[in-house]
This record gives sequence, C-alpha cells and structure tokens, in this order.
Amino acid sequence: MESNKVVGILGIGLIGGSMALGLRKSGWAKECIGIDTNRPNQKRALELGLIDRLLPLDEALQVIDVLIIATPVDNLVEQLPKILDQFHEKQIVIEVGSTKSPIYEALKNHPRRKQFVSTHPMAGTEFSGPEAAIDGLFEGKRCVICDQELSDPDAEKTIESLYQDGLHMNLIYMDSISHDVHTAYISHISHICSFALANTVLEKEKDEKRIFELASTGFESTVRLAKSSPETWIQIFHQNQENLMDVLDEYINTLLKYKGLMLSGSYEKLKEELAKANDIGRILNRK
Amino acid sequence: MESNKVVGILGIGLIGGSMALGLRKSGWAKECIGIDTNRPNQKRALELGLIDRLLPLDEALQVIDVLIIATPVDNLVEQLPKILDQFHEKQIVIEVGSTKSPIYEALKNHPRRKQFVSTHPMAGTEFSGPEAAIDGLFEGKRCVICDQELSDPDAEKTIESLYQDGLHMNLIYMDSISHDVHTAYISHISHICSFALANTVLEKEKDEKRIFELASTGFESTVRLAKSSPETWIQIFHQNQENLMDVLDEYINTLLKYKGLMLSGSYEKLKEELAKANDIGRILNRK
Repeated sequence: MESNKVVGILGIGLIGGSMALGLRKSGWAKECIGIDTNRPNQKRALELGLIDRLLPLDEALQVIDVLIIATPVDNLVEQLPKILDQFHEKQIVIEVGSTKSPIYEALKNHPRRKQFVSTHPMAGTEFSGPEAAIDGLFEGKRCVICDQELSDPDAEKTIESLYQDGLHMNLIYMDSISHDVHTAYISHISHICSFALANTVLEKEKDEKRIFELASTGFESTVRLAKSSPETWIQIFHQNQENLMDVLDEYINTLLKYKGLMLSGSYEKLKEELAKANDIGRILNRK
Repeated sequence: MESNKVVGILGIGLIGGSMALGLRKSGWAKECIGIDTNRPNQKRALELGLIDRLLPLDEALQVIDVLIIATPVDNLVEQLPKILDQFHEKQIVIEVGSTKSPIYEALKNHPRRKQFVSTHPMAGTEFSGPEAAIDGLFEGKRCVICDQELSDPDAEKTIESLYQDGLHMNLIYMDSISHDVHTAYISHISHICSFALANTVLEKEKDEKRIFELASTGFESTVRLAKSSPETWIQIFHQNQENLMDVLDEYINTLLKYKGLMLSGSYEKLKEELAKANDIGRILNRK
C-alpha cells in the first residue's frame, strides 16, 4: 500500500530500524530519513540500508510527513515537546516506547498535542542497535494506540494506516494509565524475572563451564530476556516504577508462598498452585 | 548404528516416547517394547507407533537387553530396586530422571547396582504424555552420566552408545550430588520462576482479555515452562528441595535487591546489575 509519505526516524535501533525496513518494503513510506545526531548507530543504519538517507533534525522537518521517535524513554519525555514546537500543522509525530504515562503528562498541555499519536508496537527481541533490526518484526503482532481521543482524527487515521497497511499489525486501544498497568504485568515483570534469574545463576554457579554444559532449552527460554539492553530497561523500570512495584511484590510473595509450601512439605498444595499456573497456556493459545 | 538390542521402556510419555522414536529411527534398538501397566498412555503410545508392542513387565524381562525407566521420579525410587531384583546378569537398566541423589541412595547397597546406569538426558519441552513425544528431541543435546564408577564398564559402554549412537547426544560426567546442585541452579529454578510468573500475572490481571492482547514474545518465552506438568515437577522439587531452597533464597534476595535499588532511585546501580546479567548471553553462546 503506497501512502507516499516521507517518514523521519529518530533512533534507528532494533525498533526504529525494523520499522524503517517494514515501511519501505510495504511501500507505505516513499522515503525513510534517519535523523542525524552524529551517533555511530545512524551511519551504521545507512550502511545497512535500513534508511534512505540521513539529515539533521531541522532539515528533516522541512520534508517529512511523519516523525517516528524510537529513542529510549527518558530521552523522549525531554525531547518530544521541543520537537513538537517546531512542527508545521500537517506533520504528525509518534513514539513507540514501552511506558505511556510520562509522555502523556509531558504533552497534555502542549498546543500541538493533537499532532501526536501515542503508540506501542508490541514486538521486539533481546538484541539492540541497528544490526538487530529485522524485516517482518511487527507482522501479525499487536500495536497499542493510547489516548486516541487526544489526537486529531486524521492524524490518528494516518498512523493506523502506518501500523496496519505499512507494518501489518493489529491495533488495540487503551488509555495511557491502563497501558502502563498492563505492560507492567505482562512485559516489564518478565524482564525483571529473567535478569534476576541470570544474576542468581551467575552468582551461585561460579564454575562457568557447568552452566553452559547443563543449560537446557528451558533455562535458555526463561533467561532469554536477560540479554536485553540495561540502558533501555532501567528507563522503563524507572518510568513505570509504581506499577512494577505492585507486580514485583506479588511475584516475591508467590515465591515465598512456594517456599513455605515446600518447607512444610505441602506438596499437594503446591501442585494445586502449579496446576493454576498451567492455565496461562490456555490463555496464550487464544491469541 | 545397529546394536541389535531389545529395549524396554517403562513410562512412555514425552521423554520415554521420544527415546523410543529416536532409538528405533537410528536402528540402535532392534525392538522397543512398552511395559504394560494398564495405563491409557501406553495404548496411546502403541497407536501412535512410538513402540513396537506392549508386554507386562515380567514377560518383557524375558526378552529385553536394556530397560529404560522414564516414570516420574517418586515412582522410580520405589520401583527401581524391585525391578533390579528380577534382572538376569546381562541386563542393564537406566533411568532418565531430573534428580539423582535419591536413586543413588536407594540403590547404593543393591547387589545388582553395577547393572544400573544413572543418566539424565537434558532435553524436554513444556508438554507431556505420548502425544508430546518428538523425533529428534535429543539430537545435539547433552546427557549427564552420574557415578559412572558404580556401573559395570561394559554396561556403561552400552549406555554411552545408546545415547551417542542411538540418540546423537553429547555426554558429560559427574557425581549425583553435583548433578543435583547444578540442575537446581540451571533447570529447576527456571521452572519455579516461570510457574510463579504465571501465577502472579493470572492473579493480578483479572481481565483475561488484556493478557492475551498484550502478551508479547518476551512474556511467552519467560512463562513457557509454566505449562509443564505439575505432577512431574512437584516430585522433582521435593526430591531436590535442599538445593532448590538455596537457589530460591538467592533468587528472592536478588529480586529484593532490585526492589531496594528501584525504591531508593539507585537506577545506575541497577543498571550495573542488569549489565552483569547480560553476561549470561556470552556463556550460553559458548554452547
């Protein structure tokens, strides 16, 4: 689907790079312009053919229709209001971060708020940087659009088309607060579990050789997210700290409950807990 | 590689069934006989073509060269000594359970101890039963042989061939006690993490629809093991309780440390922890 849009991308790593690949392949973007901030990643993205060319932000703003910001979330809250100040009235900006309330707060009184659409394409891998960009990363996955009523209807329609026609994603809608609660439960806590498991095993198992000899596919699957970027994830944990604390407390309590059941020899009761956990399979299979 | 052995299999689920498939496909087993204990699983294994035929244990013992016991671990400690009582002197028995010290204890004074080889093929999936059996499940994976000095050298050589030539696995050697310590760190704690994550999310997220809408591949990977059989895993947790408690305490402490760092705003320090966790990638890639 051709939309003839010129798309600018600020932050061309795993997510930004994969979006560029997808939008060019589907023809949704006439051109994908990387925003040059002199970071080595951006030159690399150009070499890898993820983008058509690099331009400084002020020059890019003369030619782009849609700006995608795919930088770490801390950066975003600072940068986005300033960038929006420079927009002309037909331009649209989206960001693709994993937390939504801080950016909601940062923009809620901005005069150009309607030109912003808050989105979260739910896809990724444990790798980062432009080399990690993958063709087809988003296909068939879900993208959340937050607070749609705060965006201009035409701008929102364009962004729906970007995700549906350009990247072949399925859309769901919720407000920023719900988004951050739900992603804490589903996505952010999984990263905590995995990082902590890796730290635990590395700490306990001083003889590294045994780790790589005995690690089975089960361990590899559970610990996979521990390879994720610390820089990206501490910012997400920070921004979503309150929700994450709730679910982390619940997780620690569940582990303490397991421990109590084992120490008291209540294995039948533990079995009931594990059988309840099995239900996650039924729910995931509905997808 | 043809060995012309007749192999009996007691417990034809994920592991026993996949071994039967592999040993017949490679030609290592001339025949795979399921041990009939009137469980529906066994008829199903026959229908699925995993085994050649079913026989009651006493009849099977007249014809088999090698017996593989792949029942849950509790069962094993009770059954194995009694089965070994009935062996003639050329027969060999192996078991493939995830804990080794209890069976070591149960057999250490048995007059036919030398005909037993203690093994743990490190492969599996989150599914169970004969339908879960997979061709090639073990290929290229590691199998642990425990306490090899307690087995007859010829018996051990036969079993090494079973795993290497029959199932294409790589062998490693350790004693039962080390095995149980290491598997607690690498395998058993991963299952605890995953089961507890599923319980946490299911408890917190009462609106099921949101779970399956927002669950990303990261969550699915971390929670995958929570689909595993409760029956199998409570027995493993029980048998390896002491080692598991050590690593579970360490895991809970790691989570509490993360929590403390977040609450005190020490995100730079948390980033250092996550960067340490990243090292798991380097270690796993060595495999």
